[in-house]
Amino acid sequence: MTIAKTFTLGTLAELLQVELIGDPDCTIDGLATLQQASPGKLAFLSNPLYANQLSACKASAVIISPKFIETCATNKLVTDAPYVVYARASQLFDNSPVSPASIHFTAIINESADLAEDVSIGPNVVVEAGVTIGPGSRVGPGCIVGEGCELGAGCHLHSNVTIYHGVKLGNHVVIHSGAIIGADGFGFAFDGEKSIKIAQLGSVEIANNVEIGAGTTIDRGALDNTVIEHGVKIDNQVQIGHNVRIGEHSVICGCTAIAGSAVIGKYCVLGGGSGVVGHISIADKVKLSARSLVSQTIKKEGTYSSGTGLMATAQWKKNIVRFRQLDDLARRLSSLEKNKGSSAE
Amino acid sequence: MTIAKTFTLGTLAELLQVELIGDPDCTIDGLATLQQASPGKLAFLSNPLYANQLSACKASAVIISPKFIETCATNKLVTDAPYVVYARASQLFDNSPVSPASIHFTAIINESADLAEDVSIGPNVVVEAGVTIGPGSRVGPGCIVGEGCELGAGCHLHSNVTIYHGVKLGNHVVIHSGAIIGADGFGFAFDGEKSIKIAQLGSVEIANNVEIGAGTTIDRGALDNTVIEHGVKIDNQVQIGHNVRIGEHSVICGCTAIAGSAVIGKYCVLGGGSGVVGHISIADKVKLSARSLVSQTIKKEGTYSSGTGLMATAQWKKNIVRFRQLDDLARRLSSLEKNKGSSAE
Amino acid sequence: MTIAKTFTLGTLAELLQVELIGDPDCTIDGLATLQQASPGKLAFLSNPLYANQLSACKASAVIISPKFIETCATNKLVTDAPYVVYARASQLFDNSPVSPASIHFTAIINESADLAEDVSIGPNVVVEAGVTIGPGSRVGPGCIVGEGCELGAGCHLHSNVTIYHGVKLGNHVVIHSGAIIGADGFGFAFDGEKSIKIAQLGSVEIANNVEIGAGTTIDRGALDNTVIEHGVKIDNQVQIGHNVRIGEHSVICGCTAIAGSAVIGKYCVLGGGSGVVGHISIADKVKLSARSLVSQTIKKEGTYSSGTGLMATAQWKKNIVRFRQLDDLARRLSSLEKNKGSSAE
Repeated sequence: MTIAKTFTLGTLAELLQVELIGDPDCTIDGLATLQQASPGKLAFLSNPLYANQLSACKASAVIISPKFIETCATNKLVTDAPYVVYARASQLFDNSPVSPASIHFTAIINESADLAEDVSIGPNVVVEAGVTIGPGSRVGPGCIVGEGCELGAGCHLHSNVTIYHGVKLGNHVVIHSGAIIGADGFGFAFDGEKSIKIAQLGSVEIANNVEIGAGTTIDRGALDNTVIEHGVKIDNQVQIGHNVRIGEHSVICGCTAIAGSAVIGKYCVLGGGSGVVGHISIADKVKLSARSLVSQTIKKEGTYSSGTGLMATAQWKKNIVRFRQLDDLARRLSSLEKNKGSSAE
Repeated sequence: MTIAKTFTLGTLAELLQVELIGDPDCTIDGLATLQQASPGKLAFLSNPLYANQLSACKASAVIISPKFIETCATNKLVTDAPYVVYARASQLFDNSPVSPASIHFTAIINESADLAEDVSIGPNVVVEAGVTIGPGSRVGPGCIVGEGCELGAGCHLHSNVTIYHGVKLGNHVVIHSGAIIGADGFGFAFDGEKSIKIAQLGSVEIANNVEIGAGTTIDRGALDNTVIEHGVKIDNQVQIGHNVRIGEHSVICGCTAIAGSAVIGKYCVLGGGSGVVGHISIADKVKLSARSLVSQTIKKEGTYSSGTGLMATAQWKKNIVRFRQLDDLARRLSSLEKNKGSSAE
Repeated sequence: MTIAKTFTLGTLAELLQVELIGDPDCTIDGLATLQQASPGKLAFLSNPLYANQLSACKASAVIISPKFIETCATNKLVTDAPYVVYARASQLFDNSPVSPASIHFTAIINESADLAEDVSIGPNVVVEAGVTIGPGSRVGPGCIVGEGCELGAGCHLHSNVTIYHGVKLGNHVVIHSGAIIGADGFGFAFDGEKSIKIAQLGSVEIANNVEIGAGTTIDRGALDNTVIEHGVKIDNQVQIGHNVRIGEHSVICGCTAIAGSAVIGKYCVLGGGSGVVGHISIADKVKLSARSLVSQTIKKEGTYSSGTGLMATAQWKKNIVRFRQLDDLARRLSSLEKNKGSSAE
């Protein structure tokens, strides 16, 4: 059941391990943006662009960095990392429903499955043969956990998640609804007439503290496994092909597609709608801007982009005609330069 | 159960409120394109490019605008808006199965849920605590309606729709299979070592007469709600990030992705595969051509595009090399122009 | 249940109909890449780039073409088509779980449905009125098969597949989890104020030996059917609009989107993330590189591309400014050329 949560500022300062300037008995019943906050709310100032909203802000307290203390008239929770402290505070106020530590009577659990005592298994869940599920894990309504899967401790599968056979999840893995882990990689051999299926004999390994968004698909490997390392965060509707490896703590934004056998480094950030072709690798700490397509290995840390900017369609139509001629234009330019040079001789 | 539907032309003219030129007793048992129509079918001419198909058309009647009356030999339903009348006619002939106004014995309905008397709840549906569902609403097999959700009157959730807790749907909202409403927005604060989850405390509000396509995901807000206004139509596999607002009657074509906190105006049309980056806004009545990426606020109504046209790969490879040099090419061109000017002096 | 599979090399040579050079009694218990193979494994050499891995390879046998026989010291299965033989071998070693030929007691099968005797129907499956399912077909947990659907022989629906009413599948059709077949096409007529729904009265026809990936959506037709021809292979998260036709043996890679009424030829390969706008056609044997957008009919076989290459963001920003000026740059170049011509006179 949903329970509203309230804390005094004193308690919050203690839980968040930050300095309080103001009234420790002030009651806080939720979080809000500077602009939307009403009395009783805790706001935060992370982006300096919003500092001008401080004066009109009606929040009872603000998470704030030391340099803005002077300009904030209300109670303050002071930290050098306001956004991180806001993240921690948001978890304190999280009131999303928590399912009971029990197995719903409609769940279909194979007798060979090994479930920790305190797991929560929702209605209509199917747990197939040989599955193990660790302590504190929750499996939402309608989920299907295929034969031989291993789920660690504290995992949370939201409703209607599908996991094929033999997939391994570490501890504290969160998977949102509609995600599909371990479907066949896309492998066919063309014999001149038709495509012959390559059975996908590998599986998927997902390390600790990974979160996977709604509708995301992660395919099983052809021979070896597809691997998602520790701390990776994956947004909605991402497609990850067979035998991909994603390095620890990388962040993959929504609608990104990573083709088979690509290797992504650690601490990368792939912007929304990015694409990575198969069989290439990307160095650690690479950032891609939204909708970038990577078609060759990237060896150096840095920020990369592809595509063209947006423009009025009428102008765009003229420009794409010229883009088709671009090599020719460049040659003509070189030719002019040479002629000029020779005429100058 | 499926029931074949037939009407006389006279009845159709009355129901559609259009003028009939022809036989009111002629029986019509379905709709068809001009090219595929056989006797008994009602066709329509909306795009003038197809007017040349009128002479060979075997339909028993045609929905047609006044200017083409002369060139159509068969029965006619005359209107200035043939495409709109075709849309209305299609609803008359719709024979998709209608589920009974009852609750399937396998549905799991929390005792605190409040369901109107005539709702239809399919097999294996899960309705959690505190949910309300309005009159005439239909919830298809396998749907999961999270704690505290509110569904208005006449809603239709097709099979296997997942709705997280606290989501509000207005009246006559249609959601297709596999859509996921209210999953967590993608929010993490990086503390220098790892990503810290920002609990997503907002929800999703969907106004009246919204339709949402198969496999589409609409995330819940971080603090405030994600909002889809009245009459918005969203196609398949669209991704809508947290705290997005889409203005009334806008149309979002398939595979579009809208990042967090973007605000889309009213009566916009976002072409298939468009993208909108986060924290920007788009004015009313903006149209995007297919696969456009919007990375800055658009303040003026109009049609916008990005990308390059398609070309043979061999030529394209030469051109993208030149695109990498484009700034340099432009500088060299300016330099030539200046030299020419100076040599002319 | 999962069963490990082993074969002698002699048996494998017979089953795969290839020549064996080496020990027919050698036991093989799995497939592996040249690099990862340990004793007991069968590897393959298809891409000549990997020939240098042969000497260090620990596999007990290698599938190999005649020209590399000399450089391979271990047992060999010799063929002119190593990749195709690897594909066939992978099927022999496939040990994914096989569900029993029975109907799970939680499945909800309408009494008017006609199921072959040996079908396998998983937990929580819903089979609606008038459905027919052919011999040897398997329907995984949580699938919903809508009213009047026809499934041929040997079909395999993985878990949580949703099929709307009236869809027809041929024989040996494989559909992965989360795929949605037959949802409404995206059709609305705008009446000047709002969008009016066009009921989607057609359906979807899928021919023999088609495979459809996880999370893929194929919409039903507006009047006629959407058609997927024989042998087509479709990857994950592909969107196929209403009334599309895909010609036989074409391959559609992940995250591709094909808009309504587009016609794709036979033996095409659409690279990952490709897009095809509506109402155009693509000739047989066309290949698209990753993320290409097709906005006009393609009449000739060949390979096509669009987009720009990836580059460092700083350089890219300069170039996209120039792209906006491209038509102007081209005009200035022409002007310089003319002046030069006239000055040379």
